[in-house]
Amino acid sequence: MSRIDKRQYDQMRPLKFTRNINKYAEGSVFIETGDTKVIVTATVEDKVPLFLRGQNQGWITGEYSMLPRATEIRNVRDSTRGRIGGRTLEIQRFIGRALRSVVDLKNLGERTLWIDCDVIQADGGTRTASITGAFIAMVDALNSLYTKGILEKIPVYDFIAATSVGIVDNQIMLDLCFQEDSRAQVDMNVVMTGRGNIVEVQGTGEQSPFTREELDKMLTLAEHGIQKIIQIQKEELGEIGNMISGGFSVKQG
Amino acid sequence: MSRIDKRQYDQMRPLKFTRNINKYAEGSVFIETGDTKVIVTATVEDKVPLFLRGQNQGWITGEYSMLPRATEIRNVRDSTRGRIGGRTLEIQRFIGRALRSVVDLKNLGERTLWIDCDVIQADGGTRTASITGAFIAMVDALNSLYTKGILEKIPVYDFIAATSVGIVDNQIMLDLCFQEDSRAQVDMNVVMTGRGNIVEVQGTGEQSPFTREELDKMLTLAEHGIQKIIQIQKEELGEIGNMISGGFSVKQG
Amino acid sequence: MSRIDKRQYDQMRPLKFTRNINKYAEGSVFIETGDTKVIVTATVEDKVPLFLRGQNQGWITGEYSMLPRATEIRNVRDSTRGRIGGRTLEIQRFIGRALRSVVDLKNLGERTLWIDCDVIQADGGTRTASITGAFIAMVDALNSLYTKGILEKIPVYDFIAATSVGIVDNQIMLDLCFQEDSRAQVDMNVVMTGRGNIVEVQGTGEQSPFTREELDKMLTLAEHGIQKIIQIQKEELGEIGNMISGGFSVKQG
Amino acid sequence: MSRIDKRQYDQMRPLKFTRNINKYAEGSVFIETGDTKVIVTATVEDKVPLFLRGQNQGWITGEYSMLPRATEIRNVRDSTRGRIGGRTLEIQRFIGRALRSVVDLKNLGERTLWIDCDVIQADGGTRTASITGAFIAMVDALNSLYTKGILEKIPVYDFIAATSVGIVDNQIMLDLCFQEDSRAQVDMNVVMTGRGNIVEVQGTGEQSPFTREELDKMLTLAEHGIQKIIQIQKEELGEIGNMISGGFSVKQG
Amino acid sequence: MSRIDKRQYDQMRPLKFTRNINKYAEGSVFIETGDTKVIVTATVEDKVPLFLRGQNQGWITGEYSMLPRATEIRNVRDSTRGRIGGRTLEIQRFIGRALRSVVDLKNLGERTLWIDCDVIQADGGTRTASITGAFIAMVDALNSLYTKGILEKIPVYDFIAATSVGIVDNQIMLDLCFQEDSRAQVDMNVVMTGRGNIVEVQGTGEQSPFTREELDKMLTLAEHGIQKIIQIQKEELGEIGNMISGGFSVKQG
Amino acid sequence: MSRIDKRQYDQMRPLKFTRNINKYAEGSVFIETGDTKVIVTATVEDKVPLFLRGQNQGWITGEYSMLPRATEIRNVRDSTRGRIGGRTLEIQRFIGRALRSVVDLKNLGERTLWIDCDVIQADGGTRTASITGAFIAMVDALNSLYTKGILEKIPVYDFIAATSVGIVDNQIMLDLCFQEDSRAQVDMNVVMTGRGNIVEVQGTGEQSPFTREELDKMLTLAEHGIQKIIQIQKEELGEIGNMISGGFSVKQG
Repeated sequence: MSRIDKRQYDQMRPLKFTRNINKYAEGSVFIETGDTKVIVTATVEDKVPLFLRGQNQGWITGEYSMLPRATEIRNVRDSTRGRIGGRTLEIQRFIGRALRSVVDLKNLGERTLWIDCDVIQADGGTRTASITGAFIAMVDALNSLYTKGILEKIPVYDFIAATSVGIVDNQIMLDLCFQEDSRAQVDMNVVMTGRGNIVEVQGTGEQSPFTREELDKMLTLAEHGIQKIIQIQKEELGEIGNMISGGFSVKQG
Repeated sequence: MSRIDKRQYDQMRPLKFTRNINKYAEGSVFIETGDTKVIVTATVEDKVPLFLRGQNQGWITGEYSMLPRATEIRNVRDSTRGRIGGRTLEIQRFIGRALRSVVDLKNLGERTLWIDCDVIQADGGTRTASITGAFIAMVDALNSLYTKGILEKIPVYDFIAATSVGIVDNQIMLDLCFQEDSRAQVDMNVVMTGRGNIVEVQGTGEQSPFTREELDKMLTLAEHGIQKIIQIQKEELGEIGNMISGGFSVKQG
Repeated sequence: MSRIDKRQYDQMRPLKFTRNINKYAEGSVFIETGDTKVIVTATVEDKVPLFLRGQNQGWITGEYSMLPRATEIRNVRDSTRGRIGGRTLEIQRFIGRALRSVVDLKNLGERTLWIDCDVIQADGGTRTASITGAFIAMVDALNSLYTKGILEKIPVYDFIAATSVGIVDNQIMLDLCFQEDSRAQVDMNVVMTGRGNIVEVQGTGEQSPFTREELDKMLTLAEHGIQKIIQIQKEELGEIGNMISGGFSVKQG
Repeated sequence: MSRIDKRQYDQMRPLKFTRNINKYAEGSVFIETGDTKVIVTATVEDKVPLFLRGQNQGWITGEYSMLPRATEIRNVRDSTRGRIGGRTLEIQRFIGRALRSVVDLKNLGERTLWIDCDVIQADGGTRTASITGAFIAMVDALNSLYTKGILEKIPVYDFIAATSVGIVDNQIMLDLCFQEDSRAQVDMNVVMTGRGNIVEVQGTGEQSPFTREELDKMLTLAEHGIQKIIQIQKEELGEIGNMISGGFSVKQG
Repeated sequence: MSRIDKRQYDQMRPLKFTRNINKYAEGSVFIETGDTKVIVTATVEDKVPLFLRGQNQGWITGEYSMLPRATEIRNVRDSTRGRIGGRTLEIQRFIGRALRSVVDLKNLGERTLWIDCDVIQADGGTRTASITGAFIAMVDALNSLYTKGILEKIPVYDFIAATSVGIVDNQIMLDLCFQEDSRAQVDMNVVMTGRGNIVEVQGTGEQSPFTREELDKMLTLAEHGIQKIIQIQKEELGEIGNMISGGFSVKQG
Repeated sequence: MSRIDKRQYDQMRPLKFTRNINKYAEGSVFIETGDTKVIVTATVEDKVPLFLRGQNQGWITGEYSMLPRATEIRNVRDSTRGRIGGRTLEIQRFIGRALRSVVDLKNLGERTLWIDCDVIQADGGTRTASITGAFIAMVDALNSLYTKGILEKIPVYDFIAATSVGIVDNQIMLDLCFQEDSRAQVDMNVVMTGRGNIVEVQGTGEQSPFTREELDKMLTLAEHGIQKIIQIQKEELGEIGNMISGGFSVKQG
């Protein structure tokens, strides 16, 4: 017995990056994970938010949105409703935290990186695909600053990627598509670094509380998936990836 | 002496349609006009706005938005500001009016077509490209209703497309790119039908009022451009296009 | 066969200006075009919007609103709904563009003119009446700066006025009242200068696309009407009007 | 020693009503109290707010707004700020309460009267002028329902009018203009009926607490002024006024 | 015949202050008047609103809110609705005015006192309880500045307290609870100082206009109640209260 | 070496419940965890949100807010800003999910439980204290429905409580106070049931990614703390607690 799309339980969907898809942005990528498709742009702005002024450090902000017809049923735009929904704000905070965890904000200088993740088509895992893609766009943007001599090095401690795991029909599985996600008993998103450390774990058993043992199995499966994703990121970035964590003080983890 | 991108004054940029780029939408197209790139989806909803309830007719609504980094300088999202800007609302009304002008709303039944135009990259002419692409996505959506037997015919009177013309450095030219547009003395958007009638003319000489003679020349140039665009639309739609204006009472114009 | 209110097709409604109706405003006028009645005030503010700071030029902003019972059915106030509607924003931009096209913003200095058009009663043509009246209020405000010695000259290149034309029951006519406007096949607003040049043309055939020939006839009719309006403006302004376009570099058109 | 505008301390400004100034509204009046000028329209709507549905009674809602240049310094529109200010909301509630106090809401039927008070020019006392004018517009609107046979009688218990009193430079005075109001130690608004009863008293000594004796004197002065205003209202309404409080059960006070 | 809760008509409910209930605020009190319960905190901020910058004086702002279930029927939060209701704004302005009337803003220095009144349980009289409690929290906050040597004296002219009076079933009574208030013919809120002067009177006879004689009786009853409240405030503040109005120039009233 | 407040690393702060603190709410509790203090009310409403109408089940919604001075620096109210912040929305969703995970929504009937958590004073762990307290208020509200015979049983599967764990100065510790939380390298919130299953895990290492081993230790410590909390909840609820999970179909976990 296998999954809706014939995958094995521990198999993730095909992952594809298309870089430099925007002629204005300092970094950009189109990430496809199965039928989940996200455009990510990274914008460099030469100032920081008010609360950081004069502290000689940078900042990274994530924004996330879905096109109205990214989903099976058309969604009303946030701009039409006049307010951003709770789910969207939660994901924006999630993306920003993840990226900041691997960047040396002191060495970024008084700059803000705006990471815009716009979901063109949603088939589960949009927030984790956003982080995985955002890492590539962010590194490209930072590399453009390095290439121009504005930064001495690429101020990134480590690779970072994310995936989802969950329990569906009492079966633990990796990288849930929308149909699986919508009837999952447990849903967990995991963000990890290239060195195998955990940046964020968010597991919810709204439909059914879960045991420590199940949690352990899900984490192991997520780790397995994220290692594969980071391998693909490394191939995609090539030499630029080799500069990551080269000369800056290495952050713990 | 020629233009920034080596075009002739009466030459439009390369136009390309990629259809069915969204697996959920009833109709969808990715339109590229030079470096201007727009995703258009057409959604069929089985109800009409409040003001049309019980009147036994349909409706078409256009929505328009730009991704934050569609432009050289990143724009703050409308959802973050909590209100939709005047320019956006103006374009949304413009798109809806244009499409409604060639659709037999009575034969559409009590349905709304939501036409979402999301600009991925903006290099001038985003509102006219939106209309040109929206026509394709809309026809595809209506054809899907026809194919399923929900509509007896495709309730469209005529083809419709749009382009911009303007006066830059005292020279009348077709299909302005952003650099031309931003220093144009006169800027005009024209929407026309396959039969060569005018649906909308919007000409502004904020930088410099213009003469009737100049207006005439611009209209002739726009007509020339729109005919070429409609030819490409016809090739793209093939047989589906042949069903347009086949059996319904022909609207005047 | 004539019109609802017995006018000829090329006849505009009676036009009346009452100036200085507000004791605080630098310029003000009550304009009546038939039953369409608009209060316009022109306010001088000694600063410019953020995007113009330090560029040594002025700015003109138009605002437009209707009292709730300006129309047959009472409208909910924009302030109650918490957002300004698309139609209102479109008209505000339209008014600002028109006025800026005849003013030498460099010679205005770092000042903003706020042009407030508040419709007391609406019977068609409120946006064109607003522009026609705004020109008077604006010139009066600028004249008060000139009289006080703040400006050397009145920095206005030319007169400006606006009217509507349209096709109703297959008949082209001038200056549509509400009943005509609400069933027009084609609706066009035209803004022109004293020298007879076009500042803005906005023609829409949502109900029925129109031909180039019809467009030509409508433009000629609009031109005829606007010349009459500008004649009345000149009589109203008297000597102040003579100072317009006297000594500044003349703008093209 | 007399006042800025040469009035006696117990003298109110000239009061003038111009009725039926709006061709759509069921009742309308332009009220002028010195340089304070307000347009009031009364609109009849054939339904009541949600909280009164099915209770077989009517409702009266007051709305109040100032044109941007009603004041010496131009005000930003509430619609631009996206929210109605506290002062405006307070005055709207004040107007509604006052009018409801003299209307037999049961005999109004399931109807809402919308009373729109739009201040064209503000020179102190705009909220009291609004109430005084609103009474006239409301009675005219009710009379139109009576004339059409929709109401059996005009369901109004009594006349109502309002004025301001205050202490300026230690002197009690009636009907403060803006210059007096802005430096008043005590500011009081009083609403009273034709029978001399009090509907609302709002007295504030933010700049200086006041004694019971001063309160008494101010109330006597307000009573004196309101009686004069109601006399003018009676003359204005003529025979219509005679129908007020003719046959309905008389409310206490 | 007595009241719902067995009180005499001129008897107020038990009043209780619990001070210093918040470890962060410069001043705080939990005030209970019968079943009406309000948390008041006073916050000192070392800057003033924009309109007072550089004028060498301070400011006091009142904010008021009710927890959703402070009332019998749960209220939707203002933050959820996205706007503050008219009643809330009116009360906020009322609280700020009252407190400012007894404070020497010049001697406060360029500081803002934020007075937050959050109603935990509402049983009538929440706005007057807020003022009565706010006085205590404010004096404690000012005393903390005095104790630290930041202020030379406590810049307060006089005590201040508030209560409600009204006419219920034709009977004048003091300190209305919710059940009385909701069917009152007349409702009046009075704010007075320790010296017995009036700071604010707000009386409304929406259900029934009232006579001058009734007004007089209500004022006398309110005065009687407020004197008792101020007595309790004095006992509560003890020595700190003795410093009020000791050495500053005494304000009139 | 011990903690700021002398606790052991595995020691939680004193926990105290005060029930029935609101005379209107169906259930209410004042929960204190050290200096963190939250008022929780549970309101029963006899209808469900639109998306659940007619599905014969109930719903639970959590709302969360902080009083302006709950924190060291006063916060601007969400209602003043006109929008609810991302952190607040995230916590609201977190509370709702947690409570729904242990309630049999089918047996709740078409009712909504509104759980309002208002933070009076914040010293770290406000969201976990909210859940721990909300469980008590919710059970009391459900018990009141059971006592009145409206529900046959209390439709709750299990107890639920929450706490925080984290890594501060490289030391894993339980129940972080604000000073610990603000400099934590890793911060984790855990929600668990009486049977020891996990409902939600949210761990973030924004300052420093963490290892699987550290995650395991934190989970064990959280489990230890939550068992103690649930013991206190059981003592507090007494016999009512014994009815939990008595007769309904037991949910997995």
